[in-house]
Amino acid sequence: MFMHNKKLMYTVRVGEPNPALATLMLEQFGGPQGELAAAMRYFTQGLAESDPGRKDMLLDIATEELSHLEIIGSIICMLTKSTQGKLAEGDEEVAALYADITQGGESHTHAILYGGGPALVNSAGVPWTAAYIDTIGDPACDLRSNIAAESRAKIVYERLINVTDDPGIKDALGFLMTREIAHQKSFEKALYSMQPNFPPGKLPGMPDFTDVYFDMSQDGFDTAGEPADADALDRGPWNTGPEWTIVSDREAQAAVDGGDGTATVKLTAKEKKTAKNFATRTASDPGSDPTTGADLGAGPGAGATKKTRELVDADAE
Amino acid sequence: MFMHNKKLMYTVRVGEPNPALATLMLEQFGGPQGELAAAMRYFTQGLAESDPGRKDMLLDIATEELSHLEIIGSIICMLTKSTQGKLAEGDEEVAALYADITQGGESHTHAILYGGGPALVNSAGVPWTAAYIDTIGDPACDLRSNIAAESRAKIVYERLINVTDDPGIKDALGFLMTREIAHQKSFEKALYSMQPNFPPGKLPGMPDFTDVYFDMSQDGFDTAGEPADADALDRGPWNTGPEWTIVSDREAQAAVDGGDGTATVKLTAKEKKTAKNFATRTASDPGSDPTTGADLGAGPGAGATKKTRELVDADAE
Amino acid sequence: MFMHNKKLMYTVRVGEPNPALATLMLEQFGGPQGELAAAMRYFTQGLAESDPGRKDMLLDIATEELSHLEIIGSIICMLTKSTQGKLAEGDEEVAALYADITQGGESHTHAILYGGGPALVNSAGVPWTAAYIDTIGDPACDLRSNIAAESRAKIVYERLINVTDDPGIKDALGFLMTREIAHQKSFEKALYSMQPNFPPGKLPGMPDFTDVYFDMSQDGFDTAGEPADADALDRGPWNTGPEWTIVSDREAQAAVDGGDGTATVKLTAKEKKTAKNFATRTASDPGSDPTTGADLGAGPGAGATKKTRELVDADAE
Amino acid sequence: MFMHNKKLMYTVRVGEPNPALATLMLEQFGGPQGELAAAMRYFTQGLAESDPGRKDMLLDIATEELSHLEIIGSIICMLTKSTQGKLAEGDEEVAALYADITQGGESHTHAILYGGGPALVNSAGVPWTAAYIDTIGDPACDLRSNIAAESRAKIVYERLINVTDDPGIKDALGFLMTREIAHQKSFEKALYSMQPNFPPGKLPGMPDFTDVYFDMSQDGFDTAGEPADADALDRGPWNTGPEWTIVSDREAQAAVDGGDGTATVKLTAKEKKTAKNFATRTASDPGSDPTTGADLGAGPGAGATKKTRELVDADAE
Amino acid sequence: MFMHNKKLMYTVRVGEPNPALATLMLEQFGGPQGELAAAMRYFTQGLAESDPGRKDMLLDIATEELSHLEIIGSIICMLTKSTQGKLAEGDEEVAALYADITQGGESHTHAILYGGGPALVNSAGVPWTAAYIDTIGDPACDLRSNIAAESRAKIVYERLINVTDDPGIKDALGFLMTREIAHQKSFEKALYSMQPNFPPGKLPGMPDFTDVYFDMSQDGFDTAGEPADADALDRGPWNTGPEWTIVSDREAQAAVDGGDGTATVKLTAKEKKTAKNFATRTASDPGSDPTTGADLGAGPGAGATKKTRELVDADAE
Amino acid sequence: MFMHNKKLMYTVRVGEPNPALATLMLEQFGGPQGELAAAMRYFTQGLAESDPGRKDMLLDIATEELSHLEIIGSIICMLTKSTQGKLAEGDEEVAALYADITQGGESHTHAILYGGGPALVNSAGVPWTAAYIDTIGDPACDLRSNIAAESRAKIVYERLINVTDDPGIKDALGFLMTREIAHQKSFEKALYSMQPNFPPGKLPGMPDFTDVYFDMSQDGFDTAGEPADADALDRGPWNTGPEWTIVSDREAQAAVDGGDGTATVKLTAKEKKTAKNFATRTASDPGSDPTTGADLGAGPGAGATKKTRELVDADAE
Repeated sequence: MFMHNKKLMYTVRVGEPNPALATLMLEQFGGPQGELAAAMRYFTQGLAESDPGRKDMLLDIATEELSHLEIIGSIICMLTKSTQGKLAEGDEEVAALYADITQGGESHTHAILYGGGPALVNSAGVPWTAAYIDTIGDPACDLRSNIAAESRAKIVYERLINVTDDPGIKDALGFLMTREIAHQKSFEKALYSMQPNFPPGKLPGMPDFTDVYFDMSQDGFDTAGEPADADALDRGPWNTGPEWTIVSDREAQAAVDGGDGTATVKLTAKEKKTAKNFATRTASDPGSDPTTGADLGAGPGAGATKKTRELVDADAE
Repeated sequence: MFMHNKKLMYTVRVGEPNPALATLMLEQFGGPQGELAAAMRYFTQGLAESDPGRKDMLLDIATEELSHLEIIGSIICMLTKSTQGKLAEGDEEVAALYADITQGGESHTHAILYGGGPALVNSAGVPWTAAYIDTIGDPACDLRSNIAAESRAKIVYERLINVTDDPGIKDALGFLMTREIAHQKSFEKALYSMQPNFPPGKLPGMPDFTDVYFDMSQDGFDTAGEPADADALDRGPWNTGPEWTIVSDREAQAAVDGGDGTATVKLTAKEKKTAKNFATRTASDPGSDPTTGADLGAGPGAGATKKTRELVDADAE
Repeated sequence: MFMHNKKLMYTVRVGEPNPALATLMLEQFGGPQGELAAAMRYFTQGLAESDPGRKDMLLDIATEELSHLEIIGSIICMLTKSTQGKLAEGDEEVAALYADITQGGESHTHAILYGGGPALVNSAGVPWTAAYIDTIGDPACDLRSNIAAESRAKIVYERLINVTDDPGIKDALGFLMTREIAHQKSFEKALYSMQPNFPPGKLPGMPDFTDVYFDMSQDGFDTAGEPADADALDRGPWNTGPEWTIVSDREAQAAVDGGDGTATVKLTAKEKKTAKNFATRTASDPGSDPTTGADLGAGPGAGATKKTRELVDADAE
Repeated sequence: MFMHNKKLMYTVRVGEPNPALATLMLEQFGGPQGELAAAMRYFTQGLAESDPGRKDMLLDIATEELSHLEIIGSIICMLTKSTQGKLAEGDEEVAALYADITQGGESHTHAILYGGGPALVNSAGVPWTAAYIDTIGDPACDLRSNIAAESRAKIVYERLINVTDDPGIKDALGFLMTREIAHQKSFEKALYSMQPNFPPGKLPGMPDFTDVYFDMSQDGFDTAGEPADADALDRGPWNTGPEWTIVSDREAQAAVDGGDGTATVKLTAKEKKTAKNFATRTASDPGSDPTTGADLGAGPGAGATKKTRELVDADAE
Repeated sequence: MFMHNKKLMYTVRVGEPNPALATLMLEQFGGPQGELAAAMRYFTQGLAESDPGRKDMLLDIATEELSHLEIIGSIICMLTKSTQGKLAEGDEEVAALYADITQGGESHTHAILYGGGPALVNSAGVPWTAAYIDTIGDPACDLRSNIAAESRAKIVYERLINVTDDPGIKDALGFLMTREIAHQKSFEKALYSMQPNFPPGKLPGMPDFTDVYFDMSQDGFDTAGEPADADALDRGPWNTGPEWTIVSDREAQAAVDGGDGTATVKLTAKEKKTAKNFATRTASDPGSDPTTGADLGAGPGAGATKKTRELVDADAE
Repeated sequence: MFMHNKKLMYTVRVGEPNPALATLMLEQFGGPQGELAAAMRYFTQGLAESDPGRKDMLLDIATEELSHLEIIGSIICMLTKSTQGKLAEGDEEVAALYADITQGGESHTHAILYGGGPALVNSAGVPWTAAYIDTIGDPACDLRSNIAAESRAKIVYERLINVTDDPGIKDALGFLMTREIAHQKSFEKALYSMQPNFPPGKLPGMPDFTDVYFDMSQDGFDTAGEPADADALDRGPWNTGPEWTIVSDREAQAAVDGGDGTATVKLTAKEKKTAKNFATRTASDPGSDPTTGADLGAGPGAGATKKTRELVDADAE
């Protein structure tokens, strides 16, 4: 069960209204790396979790993220406080009000559609979607997703801090950024206290392909006997060392199972017949050179071939 | 520049058509953990990357994921090969055809809308969206996102393998699953060959809040002097040990900056006046007990209070 | 600030796992009328609200809806408890496991993609979107939106109760349904304690059009002097009575301002010239009878006109 | 069946082109509170409705909203009339044209992607989605949704009028705004001519929870025997008066059914075993203090504690 | 299988960074007419195609479009090269950095959320969605879709060229635009080398309705015996000529099958009874004139009728 | 202005309710190839069109498509007529009702969320989105888009007819399918009465690349002097004949402008410095072989190599 305390988790002191800055802040309210995404990622994991310690941790952090959502939402409300009133009361000159809501970012949408309130959209006005949530119900994966998510949120806060000079906002954003660091640390601890956690799941990989590195992007093309891509710039611990086998040869990258590299399925005789009927009915005639809609549309003065011109003549008769 | 070889990277041998199984496979074609998401995640990172080694790795793996997309798409085509023909040719009994396309999953949509072809939707028919891509342009974050994504894809393949008994499909899925393991290993190497990588970015956290753990989810409520949530089940390395400070006291969790926990902004006198006008115009009267639409709609026999009945009477006059 | 108590607001006692029923329940977890939508609707309003009483009410109810989200999520987890384990451990026969995850609804996606956990999708697997939230930042509107939303949620719970025979689930759903009734009552009180609240906002309507009812859907067509649509079935208090003026005459429904019913804009001479150039360049020739792509594609045996056949002949030469 | 008259329902006289203002107007063309949403809300209700009077009303108003969609679309076309030509003809200086399409709002997207035509997107460029439509097929709910929707649309028009100084546009917007008032009145009449309409549906609420108000948001924390949240500011007719019971005690808000507040399900012995296997395999070790990825990434100079180094030693043994 | 060559298909030479221009370019990276949409349209068709020539063509062009995606993505990276660094390093004055990321378009979101990297969003920040892909698995349709898509992409490139004055960008965009022309030509050839291709599919149309043109949009209303819409401006080869029958009479446009224009279904007696119960329970009373929520909210001074005032009086007692 | 006639354009006679079939029909109500998409495609084009004949045609057909939307919606309502009542009245056995709403397709969502009414979703329950609309405001493109759209809609109707055996539904679907043929013919006439129409727009292509065909998908790899892909199966009028130049050589496909195939931008000295700082700070060390999270998680028994342990030692020093 959730409860609410009217105090914010961190005091918000905004210097002055700024609708354009408010729209930047929306990124962490209703954006993919924002606080609702964080809260919902951990909340959905926490509900399904059966490990008591991890469940507690997930609900602790989910609840804190909801409290962060409230902080960033409160910053947005303060930044649009004057717009909200002016737009509702309409007691400003039209030109001044128009200027007020078109200062940049999506401040125009934020004003016209949401009245300046904190909407669950990102800084481009895109509504929040649960497609942002990558919870899949496996702890070794979900904890990695959480680690990555916290690191991303940290950086978005860092960017917002870099472009803000209101000290009160910088202070609150600093707190929020710091908490992402702390949460990442907790999720890291949780991941590594579960052993083994790599590879996730139960099924082992096929030994033939677990330590192979396919060199798919190369500087040029094979010439006999030489790797195309021998540049040292393309090497690193991700493909170099005793555990790795690099496959640079283009032929060796195809049909690596040793088969013919095709896709096949067994059909019944009747299914084959139907498939063939469809193929025949829709077959192209590779030997034809048909007049096309492009020919009809190109016009006499824009590249029509002789054949096309004849058709156009015929059309004109 | 991309090039294409007509051979698949892995040979696909499907036993027999199965439209319902095809819709499960769509999860890794057009789903959030599927191959297009993987390819686009690494491709967008690779384009923006300036570290030559990482850039090469990202494009290597992006290109391989595109080749995987082709494999899973080919499996889907084989599984719907008979549906495709039957639906186009209409030479089946209606009842048989109806049964064919309603075998389960979203096979009905897959047939009617896409003709059995491999659509970029997930197994529930939801179109792929770039909202699945969590690239943010910081390598220490993006590599963590990639590690997490590979682990998730591994598990979804494992689940698909667990529910499939066609040996050819299991074999191809096994290859795809294995490559996720290999990719995760590469991304891990890349992350840790970048030092330091934690916390990501340049700004340090606020020292006061980096090692604090807020115990937001508790078993009950504070009674004087005792932590509410002292159960050992709630402890783990994510909140226990010399580096962590746990804050369980509810009051201490609020306004942790020492302020009053409110949100404020400085308005000009004119802005204050407008805000006040808006507030006054839309103020509620807490002392009123108004008749409401619910009262009007509750009806005489369904709980209307005396006052409401009087109103209804008045209405009837 | 939010806090969490490990106890649910209402105890959940599920009889036995049922993945197909679980997907129905997702409707109120991640669907448009579900608990996240409710919580976020009131939370965003509460943050921006300046009336202290309404703000408190909105945060009270938002917090309760989060607690309901937890209840419905817990029901889902119980219903998929066995699927979660079987899918992860893979120790079931493939056929049995396949049957388990394809029992109906979107149970296949719920299992393969989310591992049976409570995902923020609706019963068709569509991810939750903030497009469901209709908060616009005006209390007289937002309260009406809340009243409507509570009534919708009540009905969806009623439908779920009607198709469920697990007593524990029915009991918990009954609680959730009841709370929607209570919330609707509160929002009604809040709306009518704000006087006046109709029409919302400050600008009055144009007197000429406030009490007019345009009879746009009619049984037939005007014949001289008679209203086309005089059927008593089309009358009701929404268009009948002293306050209403019904406009049934088709001519009188157009250009009701008395103008010519066109759209115009003043352009500069240069703008006019450019617009004319665009129009001229892309003008159609109404007097032509061009051969078209459809003609080219219709083929000799499928309805080609003489003219078309001549073209095809010409093409064949 | 629908028919179309070439006259607009209201004459549109735009003073001069203004691409930035055009993007604001898109809010009511392809936005959530716009005319397509209105038309489709009522149209879908009208189709399913069996009450002849309500069905007629819904189709009357749906048809009128389509006519409004045409008016707002025509305003947009006029405002972008010059952009449309300049962009197509390319006969403007590049810098002038660039300036023309980047005047604010989403005018850049509106120009580049849609050529200045009226696209079904909102003022932030977000495509219209049927997720905006809240029709659920119960008249007592749908009418409430309509009432709320009309009130929201009224306010968005009011905001647009407040930021526009073109008299012709203000005039047309005034008409559209007025009609929302009239429609709201009709829907109100329709709702209350259906008795009873509250609570909607057939199932009654649980008597124990219909008139309870849970005080979830409080100023502080319980101290023995005293309600935490006794402030008069938190009272209003929505929670005060003879019909309401307020529950402020935190313990009394949890597990209100008198149970233990847990979620349970009965599993078979085999299911239990599988669930336990999953839990055991993925259990965290709460007593461990593992070295983590964050430790590996923090680097010697950036906070690697002595403990971490010791752990690395321990791990190596 | 896909392979990658580190060389771009076309060299990209950008004059100087310009974040606002970068957001315009996103239209062809992650927008509906952009290169990912093109690549995925042809790739999904190519996988399902069984005609060997068409399959090869589709994969040729799909692969080329991926190479174009890389070109436009590289242009974007160059245009945001300086933003990427400044934002990450934070070594710029805050005001300067703020100005840098708010130059127009969605440059603010592009910077804050994506760090200036090439995100799969359009120029308004809307994430790419597979809803853009119109592949349906019928070659006669899909080729037409491709022809149309290539023509649209050509125009969007033309618009971008018209608003860009960087010679290097214009040059690369010119190449990309040219290739759309070439691809359209190929798809046209492929369509017309498949004979017949119109109408697509196997089922013929109903002869009575194949050549009928319904004149649904008219200048005015029927007067006896005269077509309402005889204006020559409304004629063209699309409705004029020996093959077409124009139906202008409004009555003749309805129920064109000669039936009564209603929708009916046969229900069982029990189903009828249930349907009637639902209708009765939710019937409106057309003869009532109920007091409504609007009446309650209008207030004494804002148009309350006498009846309403009586109710308000009663309420006040 | 739109008007509505209560008669349907085509009479709908449904044999008996069938909720699962109803969900298939949703494809043409709220799906990408359905009637709303068609109506909105032509309506948005018609509003912006300045050619009077085309404008009339677009509004004629848009209006007809709205009338088709009403027909398909009415079919859906008939098919769910019994579900609607049963679900609302709850007077059926729970098991029977549960069976009724889970007959297949998305009938469960259609029932629970929409009460059986015609929702603007496709057959998989995905809400309609304006992302389906490909109008771009250029007539030569939009007409091609319309031609393609009509052909797709024709095929989806054909598929629905193929899986339906209710004669009344087949009849109505036959009418709707036929009208798509007629509309395609009209749009073809309109396209070719605009001359020239190819290539669309004003800018010509670069002559060097207009007639080139890049052979990107090949059977194998270059061997000296021989085209890799000489198979006749890969030839057709789309790449063969005097106008086409085929480029099969892989080197010749890269950097076709003759440049070096890189992407460059000119930065100021300061910008270069910042970019370099970012690169340096986040550089990977290609010569390192770091211990990774995967190493830490692999566990002693699951692949922790000796090297890894050594590295841990090294790290600890």
